[in-house]
Amino acid sequence: MSATGSNKAAMELLLAEIAPDVAKVEAAIELVADAPAGYVRELVEHVRGFGGKRLRPAMVLLAGRAVNPEKTGDQHARLGAVVELIHTATLVHDDILDGALMRRGRPTLHKMEGQEVAVLLGDFLLASAYAEAASISGGAAHYLAHVTRQVCQGEVLQVHERGNLDLEEKTYLEIIEKKTAILYAASCRVGAEYAGGTAEEIAALDAFGLGIGMAFQVIDDVLDLVGDEQVVGKSLGTDLQRQKMTLPLIHFMRTADSAIVASVRDALSSGRGFEMASVIRDAVVANGSVDAARDRAEKMVVDASARLDVLRPSRERETLRRIADYVLERKR
Amino acid sequence: MSATGSNKAAMELLLAEIAPDVAKVEAAIELVADAPAGYVRELVEHVRGFGGKRLRPAMVLLAGRAVNPEKTGDQHARLGAVVELIHTATLVHDDILDGALMRRGRPTLHKMEGQEVAVLLGDFLLASAYAEAASISGGAAHYLAHVTRQVCQGEVLQVHERGNLDLEEKTYLEIIEKKTAILYAASCRVGAEYAGGTAEEIAALDAFGLGIGMAFQVIDDVLDLVGDEQVVGKSLGTDLQRQKMTLPLIHFMRTADSAIVASVRDALSSGRGFEMASVIRDAVVANGSVDAARDRAEKMVVDASARLDVLRPSRERETLRRIADYVLERKR
Repeated sequence: MSATGSNKAAMELLLAEIAPDVAKVEAAIELVADAPAGYVRELVEHVRGFGGKRLRPAMVLLAGRAVNPEKTGDQHARLGAVVELIHTATLVHDDILDGALMRRGRPTLHKMEGQEVAVLLGDFLLASAYAEAASISGGAAHYLAHVTRQVCQGEVLQVHERGNLDLEEKTYLEIIEKKTAILYAASCRVGAEYAGGTAEEIAALDAFGLGIGMAFQVIDDVLDLVGDEQVVGKSLGTDLQRQKMTLPLIHFMRTADSAIVASVRDALSSGRGFEMASVIRDAVVANGSVDAARDRAEKMVVDASARLDVLRPSRERETLRRIADYVLERKR
Repeated sequence: MSATGSNKAAMELLLAEIAPDVAKVEAAIELVADAPAGYVRELVEHVRGFGGKRLRPAMVLLAGRAVNPEKTGDQHARLGAVVELIHTATLVHDDILDGALMRRGRPTLHKMEGQEVAVLLGDFLLASAYAEAASISGGAAHYLAHVTRQVCQGEVLQVHERGNLDLEEKTYLEIIEKKTAILYAASCRVGAEYAGGTAEEIAALDAFGLGIGMAFQVIDDVLDLVGDEQVVGKSLGTDLQRQKMTLPLIHFMRTADSAIVASVRDALSSGRGFEMASVIRDAVVANGSVDAARDRAEKMVVDASARLDVLRPSRERETLRRIADYVLERKR
């Protein structure tokens, strides 16, 4: 599956369509994560772009307008900023966990300023997000803090299961749902709720977000295995290094020839996963396990997009579906 | 200044007086930081006692009752739990920063489960605290998140100034105000506000909390230099190791004989601060710099206690003053 010319054009169209929303969110983020001139402000400026395309906040606004454009405005941009700052904070903390050196082609904060500063700046971004959420009336503050609790639980579970080469697919799916997908679901849910959506519309958008969040993480894990570091813009191969089992590897372990499985298992368990990365990658690809993972992600996206059938037809609904397709096509 | 028999009796009286409040807060903490049975719950149980005496939540309740006992109840216990969980999260993250191995006589989370888990569990506790705060009506959620922003800024500043052997007293005071004292001030402030205190009462209790928070940190820094590790129950000497300038050291650098200052400066800047700890400690004590720091803390406490004159006389006001005295007498 490769980005064909028409896919590339579709992606550019997507980015153009969400650009006005992204600009609004960008302005809100600047206000929310504001710090007095000096060291903290410089750090915030360095990490502010880590979230990249601002997909999550774009989804808050698109979900809102797909439900009711009249009721979608500044509050949605502020909610988008909150979601994006929670996401950015988890990236800053994740980079410590992964020992990653690059993020979006820039040095990670942990690499640049040390782990202490990375821990504290993540906390600062979280506190900034919660302070903003608390100033928005309605249930968003409580709900988004509760979502973050689940994100943390998913990440703890992931660390705890590292080194477990027999990780079950069910547990993998639980981990990625909590650590990644729930925040996409929450983005769509608050967007719909704050636009006065019906229970059915809110449930559909929540399920849509969850599905494409799951697919996003599956593709992220595929890219860690077979992506191009220069294109992706972050350190890759960290999953093999850390004995972190992901969908293609779980599929491989279950379906490949037992002698090959044994040698990959041996490489991983003896800490040679990173060093042997290209051999392992070739074996996993040859077994069809990368295709199987991509197929699974595709099914997640198809099912997610179908959930939007209950919404009235709109440009925003189509843009949300384009985001879903983008998740499959992305190279970074 | 040593804990005499009567001071010891006063401390026991203090702990007995705040015991019912602590029990209420303990129950609230258990609810707020609840996690499904399993690994995360075990981690929460391990770190729940890190905060020790629960001074901050006790202050929420005492400030409330000092203002209006009729209006002080469950909401105050919940606010106390929020403050204590924010505090506990910062301790878990601080232990990573300090590389500390022990806390309250137990292994730090970072020592026991690795830094990844410590980062994530701190985030989980913060999210739990914010979720609870958001379910309390009134401005507490926004205010406490804003306070946490300042705590983080104080801590980042501290890391940034590490290794600066010429740290000015003014900057030291700014750091400890943000990283420590503001959370004490906030405890008293929300206690008074949620009991319907007047602007004058709220300002007095805020200033009281700020003053004893400053004193608390000065004494903490003194204990890191001259305390007994067995008694204090955590790793000491870390400030010297990390070239972190504290009040006694700043006083010493400014007032001691220049030859002795030069040799201490040399030991610190060449990374021999920990190894030379006993020599440095003796020099700082002999110069009267530890006494000077303790005197400064005492003045902070006296001024703080005087701020409570505007409150009507009450048992709770006297208990708050006993907490202030305890801050000076504590050995751990």
